[in-house]
Amino acid sequence: MGAQHLQAVPHLTTALTGPLLEIEKRLLERQTAIEQWFHERWLATPAPFYTSVDLRNAGFKLAPVDTNLFPAGFNNLNPAFHPLCMQALQVAVERLCPKACRILLVPENHSRNTYYWENVGALVQLLERAGYQVRVGSLLAEAAGRQSFTLQNGRVVDVEPVERVGDSVTLPGYKPCLVLLNNDLSSGAPALLTGITQPVVPSPILGWWHRLKSDHFTQYRQLALEFGEFIDIDPWLIDPLFRRCGSVDFQKRTGEDCLAENVDAVLQGIRLKYREYHITQTPFVIVKADTGTYGMGIMTVHDASEVRQLNRKQRNKMAVIKEGQIVEQVLIQEGVYTFETLGTEQAVAEPVVYMIDRFVVGGFYRIHTTRGSDENLNAPGMQFRPLAFADSCSSPDREREPDASPNRFYAYGVIGRLAALAAAREWQAVAGTS
Amino acid sequence: MGAQHLQAVPHLTTALTGPLLEIEKRLLERQTAIEQWFHERWLATPAPFYTSVDLRNAGFKLAPVDTNLFPAGFNNLNPAFHPLCMQALQVAVERLCPKACRILLVPENHSRNTYYWENVGALVQLLERAGYQVRVGSLLAEAAGRQSFTLQNGRVVDVEPVERVGDSVTLPGYKPCLVLLNNDLSSGAPALLTGITQPVVPSPILGWWHRLKSDHFTQYRQLALEFGEFIDIDPWLIDPLFRRCGSVDFQKRTGEDCLAENVDAVLQGIRLKYREYHITQTPFVIVKADTGTYGMGIMTVHDASEVRQLNRKQRNKMAVIKEGQIVEQVLIQEGVYTFETLGTEQAVAEPVVYMIDRFVVGGFYRIHTTRGSDENLNAPGMQFRPLAFADSCSSPDREREPDASPNRFYAYGVIGRLAALAAAREWQAVAGTS
Repeated sequence: MGAQHLQAVPHLTTALTGPLLEIEKRLLERQTAIEQWFHERWLATPAPFYTSVDLRNAGFKLAPVDTNLFPAGFNNLNPAFHPLCMQALQVAVERLCPKACRILLVPENHSRNTYYWENVGALVQLLERAGYQVRVGSLLAEAAGRQSFTLQNGRVVDVEPVERVGDSVTLPGYKPCLVLLNNDLSSGAPALLTGITQPVVPSPILGWWHRLKSDHFTQYRQLALEFGEFIDIDPWLIDPLFRRCGSVDFQKRTGEDCLAENVDAVLQGIRLKYREYHITQTPFVIVKADTGTYGMGIMTVHDASEVRQLNRKQRNKMAVIKEGQIVEQVLIQEGVYTFETLGTEQAVAEPVVYMIDRFVVGGFYRIHTTRGSDENLNAPGMQFRPLAFADSCSSPDREREPDASPNRFYAYGVIGRLAALAAAREWQAVAGTS
Repeated sequence: MGAQHLQAVPHLTTALTGPLLEIEKRLLERQTAIEQWFHERWLATPAPFYTSVDLRNAGFKLAPVDTNLFPAGFNNLNPAFHPLCMQALQVAVERLCPKACRILLVPENHSRNTYYWENVGALVQLLERAGYQVRVGSLLAEAAGRQSFTLQNGRVVDVEPVERVGDSVTLPGYKPCLVLLNNDLSSGAPALLTGITQPVVPSPILGWWHRLKSDHFTQYRQLALEFGEFIDIDPWLIDPLFRRCGSVDFQKRTGEDCLAENVDAVLQGIRLKYREYHITQTPFVIVKADTGTYGMGIMTVHDASEVRQLNRKQRNKMAVIKEGQIVEQVLIQEGVYTFETLGTEQAVAEPVVYMIDRFVVGGFYRIHTTRGSDENLNAPGMQFRPLAFADSCSSPDREREPDASPNRFYAYGVIGRLAALAAAREWQAVAGTS
């Protein structure tokens, strides 16, 4: 936790910070009560094993736009946060198996992205330091499943194909007591893991083969209402409007009417809110696949007519996402400007908050120098520059201004946890245990 | 966790670091297994609510010399560790009362020490940030129990007298669900707390009216054996030799023979070990009250004849400790040199490790410029200078030398946790639940 991790904090470049200052002020005033509010809710709905949440900070609004239950990017966290991660991992693993010692970490299939493997290496190291044996096992069979990656620090991540033996999964000479998925299962629930006796976290039913962003944001909307009432703010200040279309085919051009109507309805909703808060920015929406990750199948739209005028290239780009899945269901989400910028180059910054179990354990900014404040920053083929959070998200300082950096980080942590709680309820709903 | 907390790390000023390097090397090599070892033991014996452990680092030996179950000094921790403290407090409180919201913190009686009240203020703030309501209640009745202290940051700690209502304790308008003792109960188990339905932690039976240091170090000795076998080191490298005398009266000069014989026996034991490890330092022992804290009733002895030649002043100093308690039982403990020094003035430094529940949450060095390497640094009337640990104790770095600072801090954390585990077993033994 030394000085080597001193980091700049992005600057909020908008004059429209009135409502956000108001949110941050409320969060500060009610911090003890807010923590208590979360305690009670985590008792009713246990937290996901781990979560990362993409936030957008428009100054007048701070909201989650994506919640990942199989988070990568642990390599981007400030090493100063590693003790927090280890503590939280101990709590998370102990709840699942009090005597756990051997963990099987299941990474993405087919990834050649070196950053992704740095993430796997970081997770392995954190789990080992927390006191667990870890081996990395692929869901791919034999040759494809056997890989080896050398990390920047010289360490090697060895991946071995997972074997099914009766009602267990194993690696040669290694019977894990816990399977930890870092694979979002875009192409389906893996037969290898079906019906095994070892606990699998997060549940495969939360993989992108099944999960819908709109279900998540439906849960989040309800929570934003509850929390908004609790701290007495307009829930819109922390919640992006959204609608969905259930049957769209970008290549066959079916479902365009549904799309255009809903884009229009969301834009209209934003306009009303902008008027209420005297915001002069141009409203926009983000159209994205209701399932899937990695920023594929995603576009910024300022007017309903744009979705009727997509050219062939744009339609192709929207039609197919990760692992060749066809997009049919579409989320139309209020676009939230990101008005945090860094440095003289005015690079756009988007905060990503990380949680393990119910604890916020850090985060980082995605920094882009070539994207606008109304564009998605987690786009394929574009390398963002990660900037680790300089402070934890759990040490607000009431002696300082509401927008001083420890307080802004605390606000990130609260909104991130609301999204993680929404994911917990999402799981409770699909698992039918509610 | 930013740069504002950059701190120097004391320098180990001895050439005799061979055995310690060996310990640190073993700890590093076996870190995952060590964490697992602790997991298993915490399952069998839950950790104390909080613990601080005074360590002495002689280079050739790293050992606990005092374990406090009602620790003060939370104000001396690096603020960078506050998130770790808050996480750990949440785990600790939730285990006791899952729905806890209101805590009654019971401080020392009669303390006018401003540093002590800074500690109380720090604890209150940490608990509040962790999501709990806190009020501070004194065991003293009416006028004496009602006090108010203004802290350095301008905040005020208000102390109110605790009231007994039936089988509960309360403050006006406040019914706590948990009583947290920060009072070591030197003068006895308080009637106010006897038989109440609210949980009281740590258990009053662990107060100094009842607890014996020799019981603690008996448990620790057993653990040092187990752990020494586990990591394959001589347990003496982490365990101070000790003996006890059960019936000493310094003023009446009874029990001197017992004292002299046991001082001699411990010195003889040290001599054998020093010979084995080619250590040329002069052996010494610390004679101290077997009960009690605050460094009262404590002296450094190099030869058995010294305890027969105490002058009146020395005898008076040894005879009475905190709150006027008479010393009858005495611990004769191997003196461990502290060879950590800081700065050009070669100030002597002694590490103190803090734990909340089973988690190491930080620590600090007691720095003295006017004491020798064979003297107790926690002495009454002497102000030490606290130096917060710059690093957490849970992030060892195998890429670096065994004595690099993150690795030395990790070693502190392991030895600190062994002492906390010894305290947990001590409680199990006195509570008769083993």
